[in-house]
Amino acid sequence: MQGEIITIGNELTSGRALDLNAWYVAEKLASHGVPVTRITTVGDDPIRVSRAIKDAMGESDFVVVTGGLGSTDDDITNQIVAEALQRPLLLHREKFEQIKKHVEANGLRMSPSFEKMAWMPKDSHVFNPKEEMCGFSLVEGKVALYFLPGVPEQMRHLMDTYVLPEILSQYASQPVTRQRILKIYGLSEPEISEHLKNLSKTHPDLILGFYPHYPENHVSVSMNGKDVQTVAEEVERLEKEIRAALGQYIFGSDDDTLPSVAGKLLKEKGLTLSVAESCTGGLVGNLVTNVAGSSSYFMGGIVTYSNQAKIDMLQVDPQILADHGAVSEPTVRRMAEGVRAAFKSDLGLAVTGIAGPEGGSREKPVGTVHIGLASASGTFSQKYLFKGKRKQIKMNSAMMALDWARRFLCGYPFIPGL
Amino acid sequence: MQGEIITIGNELTSGRALDLNAWYVAEKLASHGVPVTRITTVGDDPIRVSRAIKDAMGESDFVVVTGGLGSTDDDITNQIVAEALQRPLLLHREKFEQIKKHVEANGLRMSPSFEKMAWMPKDSHVFNPKEEMCGFSLVEGKVALYFLPGVPEQMRHLMDTYVLPEILSQYASQPVTRQRILKIYGLSEPEISEHLKNLSKTHPDLILGFYPHYPENHVSVSMNGKDVQTVAEEVERLEKEIRAALGQYIFGSDDDTLPSVAGKLLKEKGLTLSVAESCTGGLVGNLVTNVAGSSSYFMGGIVTYSNQAKIDMLQVDPQILADHGAVSEPTVRRMAEGVRAAFKSDLGLAVTGIAGPEGGSREKPVGTVHIGLASASGTFSQKYLFKGKRKQIKMNSAMMALDWARRFLCGYPFIPGL
Repeated sequence: MQGEIITIGNELTSGRALDLNAWYVAEKLASHGVPVTRITTVGDDPIRVSRAIKDAMGESDFVVVTGGLGSTDDDITNQIVAEALQRPLLLHREKFEQIKKHVEANGLRMSPSFEKMAWMPKDSHVFNPKEEMCGFSLVEGKVALYFLPGVPEQMRHLMDTYVLPEILSQYASQPVTRQRILKIYGLSEPEISEHLKNLSKTHPDLILGFYPHYPENHVSVSMNGKDVQTVAEEVERLEKEIRAALGQYIFGSDDDTLPSVAGKLLKEKGLTLSVAESCTGGLVGNLVTNVAGSSSYFMGGIVTYSNQAKIDMLQVDPQILADHGAVSEPTVRRMAEGVRAAFKSDLGLAVTGIAGPEGGSREKPVGTVHIGLASASGTFSQKYLFKGKRKQIKMNSAMMALDWARRFLCGYPFIPGL
Repeated sequence: MQGEIITIGNELTSGRALDLNAWYVAEKLASHGVPVTRITTVGDDPIRVSRAIKDAMGESDFVVVTGGLGSTDDDITNQIVAEALQRPLLLHREKFEQIKKHVEANGLRMSPSFEKMAWMPKDSHVFNPKEEMCGFSLVEGKVALYFLPGVPEQMRHLMDTYVLPEILSQYASQPVTRQRILKIYGLSEPEISEHLKNLSKTHPDLILGFYPHYPENHVSVSMNGKDVQTVAEEVERLEKEIRAALGQYIFGSDDDTLPSVAGKLLKEKGLTLSVAESCTGGLVGNLVTNVAGSSSYFMGGIVTYSNQAKIDMLQVDPQILADHGAVSEPTVRRMAEGVRAAFKSDLGLAVTGIAGPEGGSREKPVGTVHIGLASASGTFSQKYLFKGKRKQIKMNSAMMALDWARRFLCGYPFIPGL
């Protein structure tokens, strides 16, 4: 069983919007072992949409189509499908009433644009007649077609609630798939290749994938097979070999993120964290607090974007700033100690650097970043040089700081600096 | 003249990675008036890649293909192209030497995997023999084919430096395109539709597009035509009508972001800003400092993730916290005033709320967020209820806070709350 995805919208072919929908649907299906063979994106053009649907139907068991179900003039999927499959459009009464209710609740009046959303190709199955968003499926020959809205939140809800369960129910007797993602920070692609060059890939169906995911790198181990136990054992065996080869550079797997891993360690050890940020401007705190439940270990942060703030709020000695500058080892150490004292936290993490594009010098070029960590067992610091543009330097700095927290809590050495 | 994009990689069809390359190439081409009619994504499968390339060649003037040029086993684009177009693979000497140099500089040894990258289909034009990354073009019949690596940084560099200029040079006598993007915060899609329903779309070639871009909405006005002046006048005329209809809800256009617009206003007025964040955890500061040059007006921020921190660092009265809670009007006002005093800034912006998934109650459900602004002319505050998951609530809260800064600086009223 295999499927295709079609995403519709001028905003996609013109690069105005990122195709988050294809990504979401592909990931949902792949993580449940259902392969997607092709993703096709076309603009709001009846001829191209119609042909994309027909092409996909020729060689797939199902096709998930997103976009073109809304109320604007360029939302024309229902009509195109009706024409392509030669089915009349019929008014779906229940959907019509629901749309009307929703439109009026928003203080608007029902109009032909809204009514259009309730006209479906004959024999369509409407997923959710009681919700305001639109989505439907139909079967043509042996192919199941699923039509979802382009608005990501709505699309995701309908995909998870209706489409994925239906596809999986068709899929019971298929081979099992297992996938493991190992996430790496602090090694480049060639370094990882080098470390992994002697893996024993004994089973021919094992697949090793490599995915740069700036500033992380991900390695995936996956296998498709008939026998659950063999698949599980083979994937586990290769995972162990990779872990042995990359060691502490692997910070987590599957859904882990560096902030979630650091947070889990803090929670386990009953420790608290605060952050002092200069060039990252709040990004470290933002990443830490993207993790649900982070309030149990994250005390807060201080963003000091000026020397005076570093003096006033983090008790950095003005003489240190005068002698060494804001981007320096002594400053970052005092920032870490200062924020630790201010929040009375167990760990104080600090970042100061030059994110650019301005502010660099020969001695301290753009990308120069110092990381500091203050703890009951002492204060540590290190200098790094990150490449890239402003946002990349900020992201790499924040990730390095979080990796420091992880490595400190695990008793691993920090990634070597300059 | 029109083209297609093909992106290759199992990480794309499996949803392991977002297709940033198709997005980038499409945007570059569209913003220069070159239409992309289809984007096709296939996995690292010789048959599917070969067919995607042949399909695209059938109806395009050019095809941009990304991915599959690296050194791993699944990088097979060169070979597939050679087979599909029946051209032998030839070793590119200069590229070979460059790859060797780069591999050795990374402390690795040259191997067949790396050498493979220097074998090109006959009559290929290598873009950059002196750089380590790979990219080449070839012409088959009337169609130009461009092959770029999948690593986004490399792909972007080669696209900008070699591919785009070459495509545009073929495009000289084409019609002119002008596009204007207007960016909106604080109105929903149906509200915008309602406001724009009476636009006079006099010229048949004017195209009005609508793109949700959570939590913003973007409206684009574009036109393709023979005459530069007509196109410019028509686009400008429609832009004026839209501005008249949506007024203060339009925060900027084209490359503007809400933080860049707020920053520009602060700079113009010579004012400074500091931020006190609770539920956003540093996101407001992060967005503000994504803008290059923000150090001239951004003093810093305090992230208080606990009541005690709000008391210690922002001088919020403990009695206020006891009586009203951390997520309340009185607290957010004191936070704004406290951070303004701490950083001696002209404006103090504050956010406190419940990002979820835990922490909500009947009285204060998840998504309840208070925004506060302290200034020389007084302190303002307002309560909002945002929908969505943790990250969405954080993003909407941060954007609303930045919109408060923008509206305050422009003398506009704030978006009404609850």
